[in-house]
This record gives sequence, C-alpha cells and structure tokens, in this order.
Amino acid sequence: MEPSSGSRAAGPAVTPVAAVLPAGGSGERLGGATPKQFCAVQGRPLVSYTVRAMERISWISNIIVVVSPENIETMKSITEKYGHRRVTIVRGGITRHRSIFNGLKVFAENEFSNHLLQKPEVVIIHDAVRPFVEEDILSKVVMAAKEHGAAGAIRPLVSTVIASAADGCLDHSLERAKYRASEMPQAFLFDIIYEAYQQCTDYDLDYGTECLHLALKYCKTNAKLVEGTADLWKVTYKRDLYAAESIIKDNLSQQVCVITDVKQAIAQVGFLLHESLKSQIKVEAISTSLSKNDSHLQNIFSRQCYNFVCVNDRKYVLQESQQLVDMLEKSNIPLLYPVVLISVHLDISFSIGMEELTTIKKFAREVKKKNILVYALLIQYK
Amino acid sequence: MEPSSGSRAAGPAVTPVAAVLPAGGSGERLGGATPKQFCAVQGRPLVSYTVRAMERISWISNIIVVVSPENIETMKSITEKYGHRRVTIVRGGITRHRSIFNGLKVFAENEFSNHLLQKPEVVIIHDAVRPFVEEDILSKVVMAAKEHGAAGAIRPLVSTVIASAADGCLDHSLERAKYRASEMPQAFLFDIIYEAYQQCTDYDLDYGTECLHLALKYCKTNAKLVEGTADLWKVTYKRDLYAAESIIKDNLSQQVCVITDVKQAIAQVGFLLHESLKSQIKVEAISTSLSKNDSHLQNIFSRQCYNFVCVNDRKYVLQESQQLVDMLEKSNIPLLYPVVLISVHLDISFSIGMEELTTIKKFAREVKKKNILVYALLIQYK
Repeated sequence: MEPSSGSRAAGPAVTPVAAVLPAGGSGERLGGATPKQFCAVQGRPLVSYTVRAMERISWISNIIVVVSPENIETMKSITEKYGHRRVTIVRGGITRHRSIFNGLKVFAENEFSNHLLQKPEVVIIHDAVRPFVEEDILSKVVMAAKEHGAAGAIRPLVSTVIASAADGCLDHSLERAKYRASEMPQAFLFDIIYEAYQQCTDYDLDYGTECLHLALKYCKTNAKLVEGTADLWKVTYKRDLYAAESIIKDNLSQQVCVITDVKQAIAQVGFLLHESLKSQIKVEAISTSLSKNDSHLQNIFSRQCYNFVCVNDRKYVLQESQQLVDMLEKSNIPLLYPVVLISVHLDISFSIGMEELTTIKKFAREVKKKNILVYALLIQYK
Repeated sequence: MEPSSGSRAAGPAVTPVAAVLPAGGSGERLGGATPKQFCAVQGRPLVSYTVRAMERISWISNIIVVVSPENIETMKSITEKYGHRRVTIVRGGITRHRSIFNGLKVFAENEFSNHLLQKPEVVIIHDAVRPFVEEDILSKVVMAAKEHGAAGAIRPLVSTVIASAADGCLDHSLERAKYRASEMPQAFLFDIIYEAYQQCTDYDLDYGTECLHLALKYCKTNAKLVEGTADLWKVTYKRDLYAAESIIKDNLSQQVCVITDVKQAIAQVGFLLHESLKSQIKVEAISTSLSKNDSHLQNIFSRQCYNFVCVNDRKYVLQESQQLVDMLEKSNIPLLYPVVLISVHLDISFSIGMEELTTIKKFAREVKKKNILVYALLIQYK
C-alpha cells in the first residue's frame, strides 16, 4: 500500500497545508547542461519524484513548483506526462530566496497569479532535489511549525566545519557535536515566513540561503529543529544522481501490484498474498479485472510499480498477462529495468500439455524483448 | 597510461612520504554489518581502491592501513588478493585518533612494530573510505605541509550549518561562505603531527576527530587549507556505496589496454592507437606478446582494466584472444560487468571464408557466457 493511505487521519490536523518547491537552480555543481532537478533518473525527471512524494500525502493541498522562466514549459510537460494533479507552476526569481518568495506570493498577492490559491496555515518549503522525503518528517516539521512558528529538519555534520583566516590557513575548527547541518523540509506558519520575506533586504534576497535565518531575524521566531533521517539528502553532485538512481531501482524491486479478478475465491487469494507480503515489500492490491480498471492501473504504472502478480483460475490462459503487457506498452513509461510479471493459475487438476507449455514459453520469450519477464506459476488445489 | 607514470618527477621532492589510512571504523551510519571500508564495490572491497589510489603514486613509500583487531586477517587477505605491495597493516585503537596515532607509531616506536619503518618527512593522513583521491591533491597537501607544517583539503559546505539552543530550537546559523568542510587528504610534517599526538589529552583521543585541530592546539601550526575537488567525498551512507559503484563502473568503461606483439610494424599500430585514444580514455599499451608478459598483465587485470584491443597480423587467428580469455579466467577477478575484447587482424589480402567467420562467431558466443564480449576487426592494408 502507498504510505499515503489513511494518512489524512495520521497527518497534522491543520487545514490547509501547502508546499513550495524551489526548482529554479542551475545545477552548476553537477557539471552538466541540464539542471539537476530535470535530470532523468530511471527515465523520469528528478523533480517529478519529489512532486510525487508530496502528492502521496493527502493533507498537502497545493504544491507550488517554482522554476526559472526558461523551464516553465518543461515543467508543464512533466506535470502533464506524470499526471501530477495538485501542482501550480510559478516563475522563479534570480536567486533561491527570490524564487521561494515568488512561490509564497500565489497565496497572498492577487495580481501575481491569475487565481489566488487558498492561503495555508502552514507552508512547507522543500527542495525539488530531495526526492526521498517521507510523510513522517513532513508531519513532524508541520506540527512543530504550528507550535513554534517555524521548524526545520537537521542532520549531524559529516565533516568537521572550519573557518579559514585571510591567509588561507586554518583559523579554528568547530566542535562537530555542537553544530548541525540545516536540511529540508522546513515548515512555517504562512504569516511568519511571508512577513519575513516582505521585510528582508535585497542583500538577504540575493545572498542568503537559509529560510530559518529570515524567520529568526525578521520575526524573532526561533525555529524548532527536528532530527531527520539520512534520506533527506540533497542531489548536488553527479554521484548523487547515481545514488538516487540506485535507490529508486531498489525501491522498484520492492514493490508489487497484485491483480485478481472479481470472483470471490480469487480475490481472497489476492488478499492473503497481500497480507503475507506486506511486511517485506510494498503491495498494491487490485481486486477487479484488468479491463475495468484502466485509470487505477495507469496510476500505478505512472508510479512505476514494476512487479505484478496476476492471479486467476482460468487454466493457463495468458489473456490477462497479454492485456497487462499491452497496457504497459500503451502507458509509455520507460521500461529501463525489467518488469517482473508472475502469472498465477489456480486449478483443481494438475495436468499441463506440451502445447500449453510451449505457448507460455513463447509468450515469455516475446515479451522479454520488451524488458518484461514473465513467469507462470501453476497451483493445484482441491 | 596510469596517471602515476612519470610522477616521480612531478611529485613533491620530499623523501620519503608515507600515508596512514585509518580503516578502523564500524560503519554504523551505513546500516549494515560490514564496515563500509570492507564493503564490496564491483566485487572488490572499498579499502582496496583507496590503497590502489595511493600505490599508483610512486613517491609514496609506505602505506599504513590501520584496522580494528578483528579485521586484521581480512585486511591481510585483501592485500594478498589484490597484490598490494607497499602496505603495512597496523592494529587500530578504539577511536579514530587512537588509530591514527597507532599508525604513526610504526615510524617512531621500535617496540610497537617488529620492524621500524623509515620515518617520513611528511605523512599523509587519508580516509580508507575516500577511494577517488587523485595525485594532484595529494601532491598539493604534501607541498603545503612541507611549507606550513600541516595542510588539509577543504570543500564548500553543501548545507548551512546551524547551532541549536538547549531547548532544541535554532540559536544561530553560520554564514555559509565563511566556513568550509574539512575533508581528507591531510598532510603533516611527521614530527609535528607525532608531537601533537604525544601531547594531546585522553579527551582529545577519545572525542576529537580533527587532526588539523591537534596540530594547531599542541604545535601552534595553522594548517594551510587547500581547495579539493568533489571526488574527495567520503563514503558514509549506503547511497554513497551506490555512487561509488557507478563511478567505478564509469571509469572502467573508459580505460583500455592495447596489446600487440613484438613485431615492429604491429607495435607501431599499437603506438598510433595509443596516441589517438589517449585524449579520450586511459590507455595502457603493452607491446610484447601475451605469454611473455604474465606479471604485467596480471597487474593490469588486478587494476580492473576492463577493455582490451589485441592487434596482430596473423590472419584471423584467435589464439591471442583465447589466451587473454584464459588469463582473465585464471586471474580470478570478478567479471561483474562485460569485458570488451577487440581482436584486430591486419592483413594484406581482404578475403575471409565462411569457415573462418563461423569460428570467430562461435568463439564470441562461447566467451559471452563468461561476460567477455569479443569483436573481431579485419583491416586490409597495402
């Protein structure tokens, strides 16, 4: 199951919460022409993973993606291609702070947007290049922001931090245990962060990077610091793209979609399978037949759930598997890594002819060319 | 060519330089049972890559690898398996500083080691989990240490650094531009760092992490800070292992070994090939026949040079390719990614029979099972 299921209850009882994702960076540290937020990871732009991570959370009502003017069309097509629904694209400024400020304005300044969005009580600010953010930390910073006015995720420092003197020599080193790295997500009472941005100087807007600092300086709000997990890290260098790719690949191999038809006995097998698998991998169960559930399946495809188990009681019929393969092809998602499709056939007799075996083998060989690996499992029951 | 070629002239004119690699960490941040320095990356332990990076540099005379007592045997077998030659394995202490101190003692305390190594003028300290260190930065920190007594690589901060108050709220944030992350390698005049370790307190040894700090505190030596490149990063989290793996894979696909036989005309083709390729990829050229050069080739195998071009003028004879395949198999290096082997045949006539083609194809099919991809190139000349 997606972690969002039932999250409306678990989430912070704040209405509404919005998120602003600054995605205007040029990615110069990455050393490539494409800004890192638009780099493809497993065939899909990084920013789309981050948007998806936000969309999965039911209590986030609006996701504002702030991009530089030349990337507005790119972002529009990403939103369309991956079916993002709660996204508003906003034109960024020339610095990070100016972009975030523009993102906040869609809730406050009528002239800036053609339709003013409902002002949230709490706004999350999160980097577009931190795709692995989980609901837990988002919920924590939102709750803390509600109480303290501002909150941000922190992590222990990996390296010692030092100050250099004018001659390029060591002046002093900071005691590592006393300091933390300020990471994302951060959350603010909307009125506080908006006030801070309205008051801050051009120098702040041009050279500053830290939102918590603005809230402290202009609104006397000492942000609550929340220890985050290691996956909050920011894709900064090329090696981080490699890492992101491997993590996403790992995740994909650990999620499976179980498809059964409407018949009660079969649906029950799917349910039991779901129950026994769910402690180890993410299981998405669909208990209706394939053809009737196009849009739900398309949604699953777009989340790149790469493994399927089709359970049916029709003897060695590959119709459903064929249908799934057709849908995967039609969905046009990049199949860079093998899709595993296990076709389970429940039957009361346990005999299979050479001809049927040959048909299954031939089918498997055919679809393997499309990077889909089919396995058939014949289970006899009484 | 390996970057070490000719480096004796380019390297710092200091005799001798030694390196101490603390490799005693438990890797708890990685979240696995194996300490990160012993994790396999492309089938080879991470520490072996770092040792190799040091061994490639001719002006580093001794490499001291400090490991925790329970890993001494593991490190011994790694040294043997990958043919590391300048390595001395030393028993580590319970903290990073204590391990480094133990590493330094092999040059100074007779009772600690059964054979006292020649005391270096400059000692490099480098993490075993930073495998991508290049000669350029090592040379820079050694030169700077010779002049200033101590030197260390630094990098810009990726995140803003903040200090928290007792209540877990933000106290203040540091201006990012004024601070740097202290990375490795660092280098010291041996007498300075050894003196600092001898004088420092148990508290320093147990809770400190920064060698530059000890040199400053106990020897009044302000280390010279040297800007390093992004590849100095430290393998800390699981994602870093993913990144390391991808980088190593990338590097492997960009290096090639050219093999020709002794005949002058053929050796010249190898030379021209080398000249024209070397701007794009690392080329290692060997201009003698395979059988006579076992140990040199073994050395190349152990550095995991994954691509080969064999040039010969014997018409369609696969003898050399077969020999290379046999040697690759015998060398027992993990062939996790395809080895590409291009067999180039120079000939004055340009006729090839079906039988010969079939032989080549069959050979290619056979060795493909071993993850070796053979391509044959027939070139006619007059």
